[in-house]
Amino acid sequence: MRLGVCYYPEHWPESLWEDDARRMKALGIEQVRIAEFAWSRIEPAPGEYDWAWLDRAIDVLGNAGLKVVMCTPTATPPKWLIDRHPDILPVDADGKPRGFGSRRHYDFSSPSYFEASRTICTAVAARYGKHPAVAYWQTDNEYGCHNTVVSYSPAAVARFREWLKARYATIDALNRAWGNVFWSMEYRSFDEIDAPVGTVTEANPSHRLDYRRFASDEVARYNRMQVDIIRAHSPGRPVAHNFMQLFTEFDHYKVAADLDVATWDSYPLGALDQQWFAPELKAQFLRTGHPDFATFNHDVYRGMSKLPFWVMEQQPGPVNWAQWNPAPLPGMVRLWSWEAFAHGAGCVSYFRWRQAPFAQEQMHAGLNTPDNRLDIGGHEAARVAEEIRAVAAAHADADAAVHAKVALVYDYEAKWLFEIHPQGADFHYPRFAFEYYSALRALGFDVDVIPASASLDGYALVVVPPLPVVPDDFAARVAASGAHVVFGPRSGSKTRDLQIPAQLPPGPLASLLPMRVWRVESLRPNIAERVHVDATTIEGHGRRWRDLIDVGSGSTLDVRARFADGHPAYVRHGSAHYFATLFDDRLTEQLFARIATEAGLAPRVLGDSLRVSRRGALTYVFNYGERVHAIDGVDAADFVIGSREVEPQGVAAYRTR
Amino acid sequence: MRLGVCYYPEHWPESLWEDDARRMKALGIEQVRIAEFAWSRIEPAPGEYDWAWLDRAIDVLGNAGLKVVMCTPTATPPKWLIDRHPDILPVDADGKPRGFGSRRHYDFSSPSYFEASRTICTAVAARYGKHPAVAYWQTDNEYGCHNTVVSYSPAAVARFREWLKARYATIDALNRAWGNVFWSMEYRSFDEIDAPVGTVTEANPSHRLDYRRFASDEVARYNRMQVDIIRAHSPGRPVAHNFMQLFTEFDHYKVAADLDVATWDSYPLGALDQQWFAPELKAQFLRTGHPDFATFNHDVYRGMSKLPFWVMEQQPGPVNWAQWNPAPLPGMVRLWSWEAFAHGAGCVSYFRWRQAPFAQEQMHAGLNTPDNRLDIGGHEAARVAEEIRAVAAAHADADAAVHAKVALVYDYEAKWLFEIHPQGADFHYPRFAFEYYSALRALGFDVDVIPASASLDGYALVVVPPLPVVPDDFAARVAASGAHVVFGPRSGSKTRDLQIPAQLPPGPLASLLPMRVWRVESLRPNIAERVHVDATTIEGHGRRWRDLIDVGSGSTLDVRARFADGHPAYVRHGSAHYFATLFDDRLTEQLFARIATEAGLAPRVLGDSLRVSRRGALTYVFNYGERVHAIDGVDAADFVIGSREVEPQGVAAYRTR
Amino acid sequence: MRLGVCYYPEHWPESLWEDDARRMKALGIEQVRIAEFAWSRIEPAPGEYDWAWLDRAIDVLGNAGLKVVMCTPTATPPKWLIDRHPDILPVDADGKPRGFGSRRHYDFSSPSYFEASRTICTAVAARYGKHPAVAYWQTDNEYGCHNTVVSYSPAAVARFREWLKARYATIDALNRAWGNVFWSMEYRSFDEIDAPVGTVTEANPSHRLDYRRFASDEVARYNRMQVDIIRAHSPGRPVAHNFMQLFTEFDHYKVAADLDVATWDSYPLGALDQQWFAPELKAQFLRTGHPDFATFNHDVYRGMSKLPFWVMEQQPGPVNWAQWNPAPLPGMVRLWSWEAFAHGAGCVSYFRWRQAPFAQEQMHAGLNTPDNRLDIGGHEAARVAEEIRAVAAAHADADAAVHAKVALVYDYEAKWLFEIHPQGADFHYPRFAFEYYSALRALGFDVDVIPASASLDGYALVVVPPLPVVPDDFAARVAASGAHVVFGPRSGSKTRDLQIPAQLPPGPLASLLPMRVWRVESLRPNIAERVHVDATTIEGHGRRWRDLIDVGSGSTLDVRARFADGHPAYVRHGSAHYFATLFDDRLTEQLFARIATEAGLAPRVLGDSLRVSRRGALTYVFNYGERVHAIDGVDAADFVIGSREVEPQGVAAYRTR
Repeated sequence: MRLGVCYYPEHWPESLWEDDARRMKALGIEQVRIAEFAWSRIEPAPGEYDWAWLDRAIDVLGNAGLKVVMCTPTATPPKWLIDRHPDILPVDADGKPRGFGSRRHYDFSSPSYFEASRTICTAVAARYGKHPAVAYWQTDNEYGCHNTVVSYSPAAVARFREWLKARYATIDALNRAWGNVFWSMEYRSFDEIDAPVGTVTEANPSHRLDYRRFASDEVARYNRMQVDIIRAHSPGRPVAHNFMQLFTEFDHYKVAADLDVATWDSYPLGALDQQWFAPELKAQFLRTGHPDFATFNHDVYRGMSKLPFWVMEQQPGPVNWAQWNPAPLPGMVRLWSWEAFAHGAGCVSYFRWRQAPFAQEQMHAGLNTPDNRLDIGGHEAARVAEEIRAVAAAHADADAAVHAKVALVYDYEAKWLFEIHPQGADFHYPRFAFEYYSALRALGFDVDVIPASASLDGYALVVVPPLPVVPDDFAARVAASGAHVVFGPRSGSKTRDLQIPAQLPPGPLASLLPMRVWRVESLRPNIAERVHVDATTIEGHGRRWRDLIDVGSGSTLDVRARFADGHPAYVRHGSAHYFATLFDDRLTEQLFARIATEAGLAPRVLGDSLRVSRRGALTYVFNYGERVHAIDGVDAADFVIGSREVEPQGVAAYRTR
Repeated sequence: MRLGVCYYPEHWPESLWEDDARRMKALGIEQVRIAEFAWSRIEPAPGEYDWAWLDRAIDVLGNAGLKVVMCTPTATPPKWLIDRHPDILPVDADGKPRGFGSRRHYDFSSPSYFEASRTICTAVAARYGKHPAVAYWQTDNEYGCHNTVVSYSPAAVARFREWLKARYATIDALNRAWGNVFWSMEYRSFDEIDAPVGTVTEANPSHRLDYRRFASDEVARYNRMQVDIIRAHSPGRPVAHNFMQLFTEFDHYKVAADLDVATWDSYPLGALDQQWFAPELKAQFLRTGHPDFATFNHDVYRGMSKLPFWVMEQQPGPVNWAQWNPAPLPGMVRLWSWEAFAHGAGCVSYFRWRQAPFAQEQMHAGLNTPDNRLDIGGHEAARVAEEIRAVAAAHADADAAVHAKVALVYDYEAKWLFEIHPQGADFHYPRFAFEYYSALRALGFDVDVIPASASLDGYALVVVPPLPVVPDDFAARVAASGAHVVFGPRSGSKTRDLQIPAQLPPGPLASLLPMRVWRVESLRPNIAERVHVDATTIEGHGRRWRDLIDVGSGSTLDVRARFADGHPAYVRHGSAHYFATLFDDRLTEQLFARIATEAGLAPRVLGDSLRVSRRGALTYVFNYGERVHAIDGVDAADFVIGSREVEPQGVAAYRTR
Repeated sequence: MRLGVCYYPEHWPESLWEDDARRMKALGIEQVRIAEFAWSRIEPAPGEYDWAWLDRAIDVLGNAGLKVVMCTPTATPPKWLIDRHPDILPVDADGKPRGFGSRRHYDFSSPSYFEASRTICTAVAARYGKHPAVAYWQTDNEYGCHNTVVSYSPAAVARFREWLKARYATIDALNRAWGNVFWSMEYRSFDEIDAPVGTVTEANPSHRLDYRRFASDEVARYNRMQVDIIRAHSPGRPVAHNFMQLFTEFDHYKVAADLDVATWDSYPLGALDQQWFAPELKAQFLRTGHPDFATFNHDVYRGMSKLPFWVMEQQPGPVNWAQWNPAPLPGMVRLWSWEAFAHGAGCVSYFRWRQAPFAQEQMHAGLNTPDNRLDIGGHEAARVAEEIRAVAAAHADADAAVHAKVALVYDYEAKWLFEIHPQGADFHYPRFAFEYYSALRALGFDVDVIPASASLDGYALVVVPPLPVVPDDFAARVAASGAHVVFGPRSGSKTRDLQIPAQLPPGPLASLLPMRVWRVESLRPNIAERVHVDATTIEGHGRRWRDLIDVGSGSTLDVRARFADGHPAYVRHGSAHYFATLFDDRLTEQLFARIATEAGLAPRVLGDSLRVSRRGALTYVFNYGERVHAIDGVDAADFVIGSREVEPQGVAAYRTR
């Protein structure tokens, strides 16, 4: 467990650098990320490199005992490069190039940019690959930010055709897979195929899904090129990329597979403002963020990181980019930092050292204010650094891996598929996955987030949010694991080609759940269908969606809950459970608690503002509420952080017995 | 009265065809619509026709005793045609071509497409025009769907200029008609005129209205071309087109004038979701549809059809294209079918035989599920088929024409004019027409929907929703008919050129209603103006609009209701009635009841979920509510469908005495 | 004080002109504005002028004793000119030309249009510059209407580069001023710079602000060209332009500096509908307009006019261009007219003489209906004309200048800066300025609206809505004036280059207010932070924004109100007051009342519908409410308009003692 910071020497007079490095070190910071937006300073004119300033900056940091996370600067190609190769610019859905003047103005499929990236990455990696201060690398910055994964350029379409040839081999196979006979959409050759955009009404969803898969693969291919260059020039230094919170526009599992460290950028208050949360929740958690949002991302990125994941950018104060930007309550920067460590983080790195007084992000806080005084976030970082030392001294395994008995399956293609093919306007996959996760966290569980292809061994409970395309071997893995598994509605509802399975949903899950979803309904937000759980007094509502289930005659399925009109709302078959609707939050939590108990776990109802996490020998408690929380049954001597009385915005950690 | 179905042999293995045909016949289906999207299979490459599969498909259907409704496939030109003639694509308001990849990607004004359509239609009509199984034709499919009536292509502008020359003869006449002296918009020649789009602020409304009229005429011209080809090659077979529900983007009276059968596509649940209804109504009628929506369309298309109108596509279960897509309650597919027959339908044809597992509409139900089991809608269709036989056996005139004593005037140009020139942001003509219709239906009346040019003879009551441009002879036709006539606000408010009449509104209605509308107001949705009906206790509110009426000195007008500030809200002169505002639903219904009584009719208050229709010897009762409805005063022996107790979603039919 | 009207002889048969002129004169109208949209009649073909009709029209008006306000017709270039020079068209943010067919279809930076404008202005000015009936001039019409200040044409970008060269001299200076090192946005030459549009995410705010400044300067340059031509050909005739209500897209102070008369177009009901007011306020003031909206604009334009300002266009009845268009209550046209005079107007000119029956504005009322009968507005204008004569007879100084002891600073760049760089989505500068103004008016004060560069001498109280860029000498002017000054939040928060001041906000105000705003928060609309005023029972809420203030140790600042978490909400230092948030309306008014009393003024709480204004010897009272207002303590003999009992929509004026 260690702290880091993001730093931009090029933004400040060189006279400040030494003092900055000294103060970072004094604060307890160990690593410093630099240079991800510095291309115009590294190569101010075509082929003219200016290494001198960067050499000096790295030396200053290294001499102060700091480790450098060196970045490739490809997120911001300079104007002269764009003017020479305008085909670098990505193209929007209207066919318009997206211009220079901010960042990420490049197309992953542009051959010009691929070559230019190769050149600058090689230059940077060659110069600093073996520099003693350079300990880690970051490729580019926040792939896909500002909706830049998908481009509709001629270059993208050309590569898409190649991608399709590789996938389908023959045009007839493609026409069948997409069902192009419908509406006479049949192609005679791959060269007739365009991007699925600008059509009179919706384009074929299979065509759209393949375009999303292609675009995602382009990101992975581009990143792999950078990783290969870095590894060639800087052997032994772990390579990272900084992903974004709840970002789903490319398959992160595929990109992470080429990295050593998956890292992400955590802005809990900005996220609360931007995401789907109701206005009352946005008020309740205004200055703390939602208690499950950062941890959901921690658990997502922990799962895909070979080395312990990092928070590459941690919100240190108000940000500038949400619609409204409140300030964290005092204590929250510390709380967020410990939350990351409790979920397995190797490093928490604050963005940024000092607030810049100019350009787009001048209203984004840093650890220091623009007039170079340490801000609240800076003071809290210093406290975290002290606490890390205390914890490390007390517990050798504080850096241990997290071990969870509960897994949540999280899938990127599911997001694209439901977005392309929603059937109900508000069928928002990440929200549903989050709501399942949040119910599990409110029951006190540590949760691994895993891909649908992962082994399920070792889990007692696996929760599967709506998963339209289920891998063929999934049922076998469930059976092998012995875990109880809960499927959300629409699971198994589509083939890989985005068609309805021949025997109807749940398709390949029929061996686990011998039933047939013969009809579905999507429901307006003002509709709630009453649900009663058989042989209990538990009642609640289904929302948004109903799978109408035919259990068949002589069925061995146990119908555990029904809608008012008699249709099954929740069925069980052995250790497999299927929810035919999206239950209200309370009912979801009640059902998860019941199933978890059946799976041999011990759920503990925490409510909406207390959260508990375990790592190594320690149990961490986080208080997102407005009242003191008293921890019962723990010896005072077992606390290494805080005490039995956890203040609002407070953290406690004690030895788990 | 007979049933039909829409079928896509090209979507299924040929091995299924014979069984499909046999089961259709066994279900009671008599006609099968095919091939409207099959161009890529009929002509897979330029000039290379593949008739073999279609020959076999038609033979299979014909051999099973089914009649074929053959379609021209022009709604979906194949990719090779678009690549050869990119000018086929329609152009949107931003000047961007609307691309290939879905359907209706053609411009009605494209000369290339006009020729290509002529060729394919001739080929299809020549091959199947005299086939014994082919009994009817359908031109194209759903003209105008996905906002495709209006295009801004160079071809459209060129034809618009010709259309203007034909209408105005001289540019001076056009400048005067449009008032182009305003803002120096005067043209020196027709060649200077562009489409009324992309202007800095709103374009001249007269210019915009003429562009809409032109675009509508282009649809009629295109359809006429197809009809002429079919008639030449397939004499004696009625020609139909399938119009859409509440679709107003072209003048349906003009297109229907060239057809034998006006048909429409009825999706009551999709319509409820898409249209203006308040959220509470969308919840109330979630799985039934609004009780007056389908019948409004039945009455619209009955009026313009030479032969009895059809429902060409009847919703059989959930659809895929609304924002949310619930399932019909059991019984509704039967209820909707009988509702169509009760309103005069010759055929109800379900869309589609079997749900497709692929492409855009894979979530659209059919009579059979994708795994080829008969779905609820299929079972209900079978029941309807039996009931048709029973009714036909009992009543020789069950197929008689509907005779209504009440007419509602419905006008397409009024929609365009108010859309272009609203003066109040929510002045939505189809909604107001529907609300008047719904009030009449809630009073138990059968209603003919007629154009403003129709004879009014034989009607006791004619209701005219806001009709801005009143034909010159309308007042004379009213007088000749002896009917009471009720005008909505803004009637007679514009000349044909979209100018204010010289003596102010109601323009040509002044002979019926000697008054002057000297000022108007549009009102925000949160404003309701109290109205009191003189000499009664009836009160209510006017919404959205006020015509301020000057009754003149020594007026013979009877002011029957006033606003709180004294302005007339409802005036009567002889048998002519004028509403100066849009009353709330309850007050509208009360006033219609009063006027209908004065017109010698007997209104009967039915409430919001019971509806009654009469055709031939039979009275039909439909229950859209949640409670059983008991029919009083009818002899049990007179029922041919159902009984005195009409269940929710139930239908009854009895002999009218 | 005199009345005028806007007239379009070209819209009407010449046979009406003499009667029109006679009736205008009889009504009490003295001046007539003409020809601002008549280019296609003045020059129907390139270089072919038709002066005859306009000569006759001016003669008819002049012979009737009316003075003509002659206009340049440049707001509506004719089609032939656009076809010859398509580069005249402005270009939108998507790069699309904004086409012919309405008005204002020109780019201020187009060299073609600059030349064409010079030619037509010279022709008109030369012909009528010395005509005895021509007493005034108007340049163009409503600069910027329909969002036409900013264009993204190549011509605009070319001129922007020149503008930047003039401002920054070197590209390094520009890169530093904009902070282009951030995100590698550095330029190597001015020729690399584009318009700040179409970027992947937000463009640099400094770049955007400079583009707005440039576009504003282009308007001033274009107007100056016209003024120079008119002055050369028509010496001694005052030149005016008609600005728009609450329009902020260019710096009106700069354009007005070149004019003799600042005039504006007053449409109180359209404004109420279009602006930010809550639905309940839009209902409350539906047919009167908001009591402070027209006067705010009067005070804005009074401040920038060398001669007494005019209302060039006064709403006479319902308009056509708001979403909903109700009619003014009887009396309001008179009330609005007197309100203008009470605030210092030299002329109130009604738009328009007669409602046109054609084209875009056919639903816009005039003083006469289209059938040429005098409408309510016409009758009220006649009454105002009589009252002007009575007042003038009674009080020689009725035309005196308004003298206010309270000033409100109003700044155009502040609007652009906060729009570009809001930090909180609803940070809407004109609204906040208006709310401060409205609070002052509700306390009975006359208010001068002044630029930040104005002298503050003579004022007792100066109110400064959020002013991000404070002139360097502002603090000195405050000190020199002796006035109390109240600053809104975010004042002094930015440098001229849109950077954070080196010592943090309030930047150059630190000499007045020795403090440091070390952090800010923007708050969602559903957040209200409780505020308590020290040593009082006054409480209320802060909304939308919080400046967190560090008063420093040993501070001399008086913290007069605090938020619940202890942060200062309102601080005072000597006569300088700083609000750290936007208080709710009631608390704002209470604090202004307290500060005004401290400044030696006597606030008087008027409530939400009564307003009082003073000019010369007279006090005017306006009743926007629904109840009679009784004026106490005024002698009946002192009334020159109305009496002690002011009816709803009524006006009274009495001698101020």
